[in-house]
Amino acid sequence: MNELGLVARIGRKQHRRDPRLIAGIGDDCAIWRPAPGEDLLFTTDFLIEDVHFKRGLYSAADIGHKALARGLSDIAAMGGDARFCLLSLALAPSCDAGWVDRFYGGLLKLAARFGVSLAGGDLSHADRVLCDIVVCGAAPRGKALRRDGARAGDAIYVSGRLGRDWRQYRRPAPRIDFGLKLRGRATACMDLSDGVSLDLHRLALASGVAASLDSIPVRRGATLEQALHGGEDYELLFTMRAGATPPRGAIRIGAIIEGQPGLVLLNGEPLPPRGYDHFRK
Amino acid sequence: MNELGLVARIGRKQHRRDPRLIAGIGDDCAIWRPAPGEDLLFTTDFLIEDVHFKRGLYSAADIGHKALARGLSDIAAMGGDARFCLLSLALAPSCDAGWVDRFYGGLLKLAARFGVSLAGGDLSHADRVLCDIVVCGAAPRGKALRRDGARAGDAIYVSGRLGRDWRQYRRPAPRIDFGLKLRGRATACMDLSDGVSLDLHRLALASGVAASLDSIPVRRGATLEQALHGGEDYELLFTMRAGATPPRGAIRIGAIIEGQPGLVLLNGEPLPPRGYDHFRK
Repeated sequence: MNELGLVARIGRKQHRRDPRLIAGIGDDCAIWRPAPGEDLLFTTDFLIEDVHFKRGLYSAADIGHKALARGLSDIAAMGGDARFCLLSLALAPSCDAGWVDRFYGGLLKLAARFGVSLAGGDLSHADRVLCDIVVCGAAPRGKALRRDGARAGDAIYVSGRLGRDWRQYRRPAPRIDFGLKLRGRATACMDLSDGVSLDLHRLALASGVAASLDSIPVRRGATLEQALHGGEDYELLFTMRAGATPPRGAIRIGAIIEGQPGLVLLNGEPLPPRGYDHFRK
Repeated sequence: MNELGLVARIGRKQHRRDPRLIAGIGDDCAIWRPAPGEDLLFTTDFLIEDVHFKRGLYSAADIGHKALARGLSDIAAMGGDARFCLLSLALAPSCDAGWVDRFYGGLLKLAARFGVSLAGGDLSHADRVLCDIVVCGAAPRGKALRRDGARAGDAIYVSGRLGRDWRQYRRPAPRIDFGLKLRGRATACMDLSDGVSLDLHRLALASGVAASLDSIPVRRGATLEQALHGGEDYELLFTMRAGATPPRGAIRIGAIIEGQPGLVLLNGEPLPPRGYDHFRK
């Protein structure tokens, strides 16, 4: 296995080719021709062995799936359609050609489901598996959903019950379709990757408002603690004007209020932002 | 130091704001509004401690500089102007706030030189420093330089002498300005990151031609071996129609010939592609 052979092998795995992708895998850069009237959305997310996953608990295909799903979830959070991705992948010494095939199999299966082209990336080696996904999405000009538009009086929703589910944890299902329904309707939106206590704090902070939670929809088998602080839900957290009708499946969890920016209350008591933080000492 | 604080700290370091960057650091995605008539170029490059650099030999600012420079060099190779970047960064336990400041200092100084906005990224922790840079560049529609346009009879050039230079190695100078002069003139182009023996093999393979080298311009202090196979030159390798005038500073090193695609000859003898390959066994 050498780098040229590996790149050719990856390129062959992909069948459909997006006509807007003028050049994909194999040149110094991918070339993308933007459609008129569209804003482009960009996100990048690490997936690092022993930080974000253990190889003993994840198959190669799970890792490929999850690497892309993390990026797609950010596109969903902006109300975007997914367009293409680039993947930087460092292989550990024990990753053979079969592992690489299964990894890209998992990634490309999810990519095909959302019409995403693998446009390029970087290959390297390291002592453990390192992935960094770049996803480009698109939204009509000015229509991308942001975190900073929530106003006092808005209702707060999530796109589904909270609390880690093991299958969902290994193979998250990005809520792209749900996000598309929020375009022009939600006042603010983000994805729940680090726990609602921390993520709602971030949304409220960005919007300069406070938030009051009154009910938390806990997934069957999860605890309230997990639902509040657990992270890796990959559901959408969003706000809408009071009285606006949310998409089917949305669950109301509270309301935006005036108050100290970023403050989150649960049943009237301050809820500390205890979700996942890489740098909390 | 927590993640929110760190993100705010990074956001404040950047002064100039590109009006095409509708949303930058701090939301789920960056939002970019493409200009009409432009193709966008995308590249992603790892810079991994103990694979691409040793922390004892590189200052934090060197690492920040080099992470971005690697991506800019790919944009240069396509004849692109640089627009924005995203950085995924995993910090090692010993990286304190001062280290982070110096790292972004090095990166943002180079970014300012090329008018590049830091639009977002990801932060994580790991047992060593991991960087993955994404750079977006732009070229007028259909004008990006590719690897696959070289034809028999074309002359082969490099943008400068070859062979590793220690200063250049720590703080590569991306040849964006040189690449812009090649637009509409070069028939094929790529950057020299893995050694001319391997990189010319790749260019010839992509173009379906062979190449014959007759002179290698060795940098003072370097050996011919380093110039041929050493990698990390960050000069441009390109081809032009015979008789076309290259930009000032270009050095002719040979000619494209008919023959087995990818074959490279040096003074008539086959030159094996011995440059850097992460997966050579």
